[in-house]
Amino acid sequence: MVIGQKTMFVRTAGCDYRCSWCDSAFTWDGSAKDQIRKLSAQQVWEELQAIGGDRFSHVTISGGNPALLSSIGELVRLLRANGIRTAVETQGSRWQDWLLGIDDVTISPKPPSSGMNTDFAMLDEMIRRLSRSPVESMMQQIMFADDDEENGDLQALHQQVSLKVVIFDEADLDYAEQVHLRYPGIPFYMQTGNPDVLREEDDIAASLLRRYEWLIDQAMERRSFNDARILPQLHTLVWGNKRGV
Amino acid sequence: MVIGQKTMFVRTAGCDYRCSWCDSAFTWDGSAKDQIRKLSAQQVWEELQAIGGDRFSHVTISGGNPALLSSIGELVRLLRANGIRTAVETQGSRWQDWLLGIDDVTISPKPPSSGMNTDFAMLDEMIRRLSRSPVESMMQQIMFADDDEENGDLQALHQQVSLKVVIFDEADLDYAEQVHLRYPGIPFYMQTGNPDVLREEDDIAASLLRRYEWLIDQAMERRSFNDARILPQLHTLVWGNKRGV
Repeated sequence: MVIGQKTMFVRTAGCDYRCSWCDSAFTWDGSAKDQIRKLSAQQVWEELQAIGGDRFSHVTISGGNPALLSSIGELVRLLRANGIRTAVETQGSRWQDWLLGIDDVTISPKPPSSGMNTDFAMLDEMIRRLSRSPVESMMQQIMFADDDEENGDLQALHQQVSLKVVIFDEADLDYAEQVHLRYPGIPFYMQTGNPDVLREEDDIAASLLRRYEWLIDQAMERRSFNDARILPQLHTLVWGNKRGV
Repeated sequence: MVIGQKTMFVRTAGCDYRCSWCDSAFTWDGSAKDQIRKLSAQQVWEELQAIGGDRFSHVTISGGNPALLSSIGELVRLLRANGIRTAVETQGSRWQDWLLGIDDVTISPKPPSSGMNTDFAMLDEMIRRLSRSPVESMMQQIMFADDDEENGDLQALHQQVSLKVVIFDEADLDYAEQVHLRYPGIPFYMQTGNPDVLREEDDIAASLLRRYEWLIDQAMERRSFNDARILPQLHTLVWGNKRGV
């Protein structure tokens, strides 16, 4: 949903999942233990400014699963007060009230190839809390706009929510179809999986593009994916598995 | 704005521009004269169904410049009556009332490398006619929703408008900056140009990805592009210059 957006990443440590193909396992498997730092919201904001100066206005909060941490709420308020738009990516296994203050919420339930099971009762509840009709969204926007005039520094929040499923194989496609049909009103994205998360040197773009073409072909065949958006993992095409870009 | 969307393409012949790097010059340079057919809106719709069956629900109208043709209005109404969402891409040099009936309007003014000049007075007027405040959009949506209940078959229109500039060099970047600053409320996309529109066989993905990385690096350096979205030309990465895909 935010593909191509210039953004700064904040990665939280810790996850309630252990996906077999996780590309950020260093956030939970202990391998980058010495790089994990405990920072206050204010310290995170200062770090972002030190790195990005004024050349960013969007921050993506990812993990691990950032929805394990209620303290992210303070960071969200701080970013918003400074005119920064925010995105979050979470698998939809835990709720936090601060999710309501995020501009772009991507819920990415994990397909069978991950080895994880989806708690659909929880996912239903997350989607319900994040879903608003166009009229409700409008009211929310108008209310926030009124707040603006009083507070001066808060931007109107126009939250967008989407679902994204990473696809490695046909079982994942069936799972994706099930998710899409269960939440027909939510914009739905499918993304190619990257099986080579450890190959840091090689050029993996060609094999990723073949996977992407396969995924497009599969989606073409199914009427249920007429409204789905099919995307590659863009940063991996450009930078491979390099970190820090 | 519709990247990754499963769509059917309708290409109109004829253009008021002659961009040096046009990737669809066959629509106006006479080279595909025998493939250009004069079809009624009903015939276009039948052709789309013959090719796509029920495996599509989105149609992109492109050219050439489709905004040269007032008769496209009939096609737009027909598609909409059949529950098909529509997108259009046009350079913003001509107005048509049917643009108001399109779901996703991409205006793509052409940068200096094209050899074309932008009529900014016309572009201002196009953007003005297509721009609505969130409150106006809401009212439009509510009105269309009321229509729905009476007519039964029309979907609520929730139009999105965006600007896109193709970038080949630094002069194009300066032009893009000027366009983005002139229309700050309109979502703004920059896309890598493809200089090899005639190489049908070769694998051009690697060189396109290098161009994309260059464009990202450039955008990173400028604060004015904090809100811009930077995208590759996805179909060229996957299929090169092959037609009919």
